[in-house]
Amino acid sequence: MQIILIGASGTIGSAIDDALSAKHDLVRVGRTSGDVHADLSDPSSIEALYEEVGPFDAVVSAAGNAAFNPLLDLSDDDFDLSLSSKLMGQVNLVRYGLPHIRTDGNPSFTLVSGVLSQEPMPGSAAISMVNSGIEGFMRAAALEADGVRVNVVSPPWVSETLEAMGEDPSDGLPAATVAKAFVDSVEGEMTGEVVDAREYA
Amino acid sequence: MQIILIGASGTIGSAIDDALSAKHDLVRVGRTSGDVHADLSDPSSIEALYEEVGPFDAVVSAAGNAAFNPLLDLSDDDFDLSLSSKLMGQVNLVRYGLPHIRTDGNPSFTLVSGVLSQEPMPGSAAISMVNSGIEGFMRAAALEADGVRVNVVSPPWVSETLEAMGEDPSDGLPAATVAKAFVDSVEGEMTGEVVDAREYA
Repeated sequence: MQIILIGASGTIGSAIDDALSAKHDLVRVGRTSGDVHADLSDPSSIEALYEEVGPFDAVVSAAGNAAFNPLLDLSDDDFDLSLSSKLMGQVNLVRYGLPHIRTDGNPSFTLVSGVLSQEPMPGSAAISMVNSGIEGFMRAAALEADGVRVNVVSPPWVSETLEAMGEDPSDGLPAATVAKAFVDSVEGEMTGEVVDAREYA
Repeated sequence: MQIILIGASGTIGSAIDDALSAKHDLVRVGRTSGDVHADLSDPSSIEALYEEVGPFDAVVSAAGNAAFNPLLDLSDDDFDLSLSSKLMGQVNLVRYGLPHIRTDGNPSFTLVSGVLSQEPMPGSAAISMVNSGIEGFMRAAALEADGVRVNVVSPPWVSETLEAMGEDPSDGLPAATVAKAFVDSVEGEMTGEVVDAREYA
């Protein structure tokens, strides 16, 4: 399959790259790195990405920013960033990508949320909002995507991220384990699912 | 209690008004009707609302627009409206209201989502997205609201709305029943809950 991997240079994206590249052709996308550049928060950049890549079989997104801050310190700009990048950026990957995806084979979109959707912590109001929002969008979009599967992978804290923050990596899940959830969404048959990456530990 | 009721003239709002007004003082808010006017999609209008009303004990929202359209017919404007009105409008009721709410007594914010959050239908991609988003925000905000309760009521189709659409009202829940869920959130002790109004049937 020809798979567009958004956020290919990130911690989770690199692990997905390792897990998919032996069997599939990847188009690696990043804001400033990869085969093609795109900025999720800019709708015209997503349209340009699909024009440049041409037909493809799947999109995998491990990208999108959202702001972490105490509730009353979250600014209007923090909410705007979270909505335009992690939420609408990924929504637009589906909306703008559906007319371009090849529908023979096993086409799919796999987006990313996070367990803060259902298990918040102080500081996560904007992130929990966009993670839940992407899951709600996915459940509905999967009904209408007409033979194209749509899923969301929900990762917990990733070990490599915790280690980089000086925290105990054993409190998280290794990126290679999180990547298994993405592979399952791409190669499997599920649709309309929030895939909890912890089930792949 | 002094309760600010957003969307007081709507189908659900009117039923909440009937259910709360015997025991509480209501400030009825609508875009063009009520005691005070406010436009949820305009942050400065929400700030002006709180300045005008002064201290209060609770906010109840039965307001917010979101677009219903087939997935590929949903426009950028449809998503923008849904995000700015039903999602960020209600988020801003909490963010801008927290510094003004009286914290003695039993203070609370009660927002509204809808069962399309978890039970989508074709056409509901934007609505399901914002309904899920408001629930995710609420779960996180309730952790940080410091003695102020935050809940979301999730109504199904309302009988009066179905009747107005020429559909069978018995497929929905009467607005007076939906209102009981809002009353329970305001007068009870729960916080961080998505209250399924169907449990009050």
